[in-house]
Amino acid sequence: RERVRALLERRWFTNLVLVVILVNALVLGVETMVRRSALQPVLEVLDHIMLGFFVLELLLRFFAYGRRFFTDPWSVFDLLVVGVALIPASGSLAALRALRVLRVLRVITVVPSLRRVVDGLLRAVPGMGAVGALLALVMYVSAVIATGLFDEAAPEYFGHLGTSLFTLFQAMTGEAWPDIARAVMETHPSAWIFFVLYILVVGFAVLNLFIAVIVNGMEE
Amino acid sequence: RERVRALLERRWFTNLVLVVILVNALVLGVETMVRRSALQPVLEVLDHIMLGFFVLELLLRFFAYGRRFFTDPWSVFDLLVVGVALIPASGSLAALRALRVLRVLRVITVVPSLRRVVDGLLRAVPGMGAVGALLALVMYVSAVIATGLFDEAAPEYFGHLGTSLFTLFQAMTGEAWPDIARAVMETHPSAWIFFVLYILVVGFAVLNLFIAVIVNGMEE
Amino acid sequence: RERVRALLERRWFTNLVLVVILVNALVLGVETMVRRSALQPVLEVLDHIMLGFFVLELLLRFFAYGRRFFTDPWSVFDLLVVGVALIPASGSLAALRALRVLRVLRVITVVPSLRRVVDGLLRAVPGMGAVGALLALVMYVSAVIATGLFDEAAPEYFGHLGTSLFTLFQAMTGEAWPDIARAVMETHPSAWIFFVLYILVVGFAVLNLFIAVIVNGMEE
Amino acid sequence: RERVRALLERRWFTNLVLVVILVNALVLGVETMVRRSALQPVLEVLDHIMLGFFVLELLLRFFAYGRRFFTDPWSVFDLLVVGVALIPASGSLAALRALRVLRVLRVITVVPSLRRVVDGLLRAVPGMGAVGALLALVMYVSAVIATGLFDEAAPEYFGHLGTSLFTLFQAMTGEAWPDIARAVMETHPSAWIFFVLYILVVGFAVLNLFIAVIVNGMEE
Ligand code: NA
Ligand code: NA
Repeated sequence: RERVRALLERRWFTNLVLVVILVNALVLGVETMVRRSALQPVLEVLDHIMLGFFVLELLLRFFAYGRRFFTDPWSVFDLLVVGVALIPASGSLAALRALRVLRVLRVITVVPSLRRVVDGLLRAVPGMGAVGALLALVMYVSAVIATGLFDEAAPEYFGHLGTSLFTLFQAMTGEAWPDIARAVMETHPSAWIFFVLYILVVGFAVLNLFIAVIVNGMEE
Repeated sequence: RERVRALLERRWFTNLVLVVILVNALVLGVETMVRRSALQPVLEVLDHIMLGFFVLELLLRFFAYGRRFFTDPWSVFDLLVVGVALIPASGSLAALRALRVLRVLRVITVVPSLRRVVDGLLRAVPGMGAVGALLALVMYVSAVIATGLFDEAAPEYFGHLGTSLFTLFQAMTGEAWPDIARAVMETHPSAWIFFVLYILVVGFAVLNLFIAVIVNGMEE
Repeated sequence: RERVRALLERRWFTNLVLVVILVNALVLGVETMVRRSALQPVLEVLDHIMLGFFVLELLLRFFAYGRRFFTDPWSVFDLLVVGVALIPASGSLAALRALRVLRVLRVITVVPSLRRVVDGLLRAVPGMGAVGALLALVMYVSAVIATGLFDEAAPEYFGHLGTSLFTLFQAMTGEAWPDIARAVMETHPSAWIFFVLYILVVGFAVLNLFIAVIVNGMEE
Repeated sequence: RERVRALLERRWFTNLVLVVILVNALVLGVETMVRRSALQPVLEVLDHIMLGFFVLELLLRFFAYGRRFFTDPWSVFDLLVVGVALIPASGSLAALRALRVLRVLRVITVVPSLRRVVDGLLRAVPGMGAVGALLALVMYVSAVIATGLFDEAAPEYFGHLGTSLFTLFQAMTGEAWPDIARAVMETHPSAWIFFVLYILVVGFAVLNLFIAVIVNGMEE
């Protein structure tokens, strides 16, 4: 057990894992370009070999660290992104095949500087909590209002609560809201009040979300 | 009176209010999805019961705190968002029905951390006053100029003063201004001067509005 | 002369000027809405009276302060925005009529808090000088390259140097560049290199322009 | 050799170089406007003379500083932007002709204040390294997933890995993503999950890239 642990922490082993991840990234990228060609089965076999390597590495780590494996969030992350490829991707789960490439995100686990950056980003999340909850609240209330008022005027934007939430999320990113507003204002000329208020309130909240992240970023 | 006050300040009572608000949010959300189905009357009755609960709670608070009720801005806020549902929503006021969901914003009054965030956001508003007034002035002057120059070239964007103000508000958020500019420039080729100047001046003013909020946010 | 100066500095006189400006703003706003109605001549007469008042005020200030009138940049500003209405707006200068409303910007000269804000904004401009010059240089070079490469592929966007500059200014504000890029890429598939480089370089320069303003704003 | 060095460092010589660059900028700008007119050959001759001047200046600098010429990155930059005009621009390299104007960027080398600004901008780049690598990783993984899932639903946006990368770069700048999302969601209604996650993750990463630059900018 001690020996396995020593092996896992050796430099050449970490570098090997990194190289396999990068080659795997390349293989999966090339695969999207050679669909239905003679090269595809070859790449698929290569991908399976590398998947096997990752499963083996995870088993070694579980053997070496035992329970502690599950208390390290990065190990759980590795388990999930590798595990997604082991679910049989057939029928309604065919979409899962495309998620195999999530495995490439393991680069973050292996390269310490990337890991530090992601740790830093995640530490900024709790500080965004209250403003984020407020934003979600404002979006939900606005979506219910917009569905109630505009569902017949513009069903493609506000026909259902889910559609409204998606439309208002797009408006929050500043995209396409003039198109949406003009479509609604054809039947409800005073709908500009709703849109202007929404843009101002949400814009102000998002700005404060940014400030929370900036202040957190400058404290570090 | 003392007893009512004690009741209102008990933990379980505040939690009960929070739960009723969240259930009410859910009920109003589901209601938008089940229009004209058998479920709608049921949800409407549920909504009326919860409205009754909020009215009762407001009456208790008024009984307990008397006049001081009206000096607390959050209580006035609660009164307004609950009261909007008591106005008979018929005829030209049918739109008010959709505003019942504003009641869900009471979550802010009940959860102390959200209240603090909103208090913080509102404290940033006075610091934005002078730049905001300047921005409004620039927008008004630009809207009068644009209506005078472009109302015949692009009536859908600049036909009336109100339309121009809305169009320039959209241009301020960075949206769709190339479409608007190109529509006008078909008849007024030198209109680019107006748009470039407007975008630069308003962009600079908005940036300074952001800085006012950032500086305020970092002082706290 | 001393007396005139005393009059100009009295509180009630400054307030009178402010009121006349605001009424003038309203009159010019309403005028855009009542074109070709019976009310228009009335508003035009009102506007002329207020213009007369402003001319008189400027003459008094010139009499009271003599040469020093021209060394105060705000006085020169007042002179320009009032003077624009005295140029006979006929023939090719008909557009000048729409600029009469610039006079409303005199609110900035009269209200001290607005004046301070504008002074502050203007003080930030020199700090933006070098990055701004760099941005202008990058835009000019990019416009010459784009005109040379894409003028036949997309003449509506890159047909002339001026058109290219305007298109690249729009792309800088983040607007509509996917439409532009896709139009060009139909004939030049590798044009994405130009657009991606341009967006990255200009985006980075604009970000640094913002930082120059933020740092300046926080130092105050 | 000493004398040449003294000449190169004299004020009037640097000013002469600056003037030639600016005249060259003008000539290349005017040239885009007079294609196929009698003026073009004249401008082309002028451009060749100025190119000759720059080549001569570079030779003098190489003679004066010898090997040290190549250790100064700005000298290498000058060499590259001048050298691009010496490659015979015919056949598949015809596009190189349009790049002659890159020479105008030599203004940066000659004007010390611009040089300092660019040096400052470049010093901010290493601080962006880790977040930038992370962003590239997220974009690559998302592009492989999007190509796998949506290549048949929206081949104009996600048909090949390269197209997907370009589409996701546009979505990162906040442009046109609602159009793209709606096109995909016609066949894959749950594709909103992919887009909302992508916008949130990339938006958060870009924000942190900005913070890295802001913090760096304020430290200076
Ligand atoms: Na946009
Ligand atoms: Na945008």
